[in-house]
Amino acid sequence: MSLPLFFVFLASCLTAGTTGAVFKPNTWYDSLNKPEWTPPNWVFPTVWTTLYILMSIAAARVAGLAGENAEVGMALALWGLQIGFNTLWTPIFFGLHRLGGGMIVLVGLWLTVFATTILFWRIDWVAGLLFVPYVIWVTTAGALNWSVWRRNPNEPAVTP
Amino acid sequence: MSLPLFFVFLASCLTAGTTGAVFKPNTWYDSLNKPEWTPPNWVFPTVWTTLYILMSIAAARVAGLAGENAEVGMALALWGLQIGFNTLWTPIFFGLHRLGGGMIVLVGLWLTVFATTILFWRIDWVAGLLFVPYVIWVTTAGALNWSVWRRNPNEPAVTP
Repeated sequence: MSLPLFFVFLASCLTAGTTGAVFKPNTWYDSLNKPEWTPPNWVFPTVWTTLYILMSIAAARVAGLAGENAEVGMALALWGLQIGFNTLWTPIFFGLHRLGGGMIVLVGLWLTVFATTILFWRIDWVAGLLFVPYVIWVTTAGALNWSVWRRNPNEPAVTP
Repeated sequence: MSLPLFFVFLASCLTAGTTGAVFKPNTWYDSLNKPEWTPPNWVFPTVWTTLYILMSIAAARVAGLAGENAEVGMALALWGLQIGFNTLWTPIFFGLHRLGGGMIVLVGLWLTVFATTILFWRIDWVAGLLFVPYVIWVTTAGALNWSVWRRNPNEPAVTP
């Protein structure tokens, strides 16, 4: 695996992680009606840090195969799209309190992560495997966003 | 140019554009001390829409060369990083009113856009050329962010 590639992908993850760090669980989030199985707040940064490292390793492995595999172009396009959705979710949910808007972003994120996993697997099965925990986590996050949205139907959006 | 590739890259741009649409110039922005040469508000979405289309065409051209050029991996990694910085700027600046934080993001964006332009040019000069207006615009946006930051040194950040 090429370290320069790894660090450029990890930097993309850091831009996504920055929205998570500046728009984070606050008193508004604490006050929401949430399901019993909601993970404690410390779980989220821990899981995301792990996933960012795994997805950067996966992307660096796949990017290193450009030059011998034409599918790498679409695979990295999808990787870029998933990190875009990833970056977008936090300001929508925590910044604007838009629970339904967050759900739309998560559906886009889930579909893109799933498509990326399939394509990565076809190019390099290790890279595909590294994406499996991400699929599981985004499924969980989607279920949580859905549940919170249903339990707080009249939550007003804020304007910055 | 592959249309599926173009539309996946354009979708990444739409996630960036969404932060621009939900965190947009508001009464807070209007109240800031800005330089005389500040473009009118309607210029920004017009320019960004144009740039998003150009950068998606450029990325689709480069991604289509995967399989024959090993540098496509790093080129698309950098493209993903620039769209990450692009998505991050708006919530930092308009969402949190962090003028200095926005400047840091813009420096990262400028360096990444410049690096992407160089690498795209080496792979496909048309793709590099399509990035030149973006370099010019990010330079302008950086100068504007810098000027606004200097003119409003005590502007307080908000918390969401």
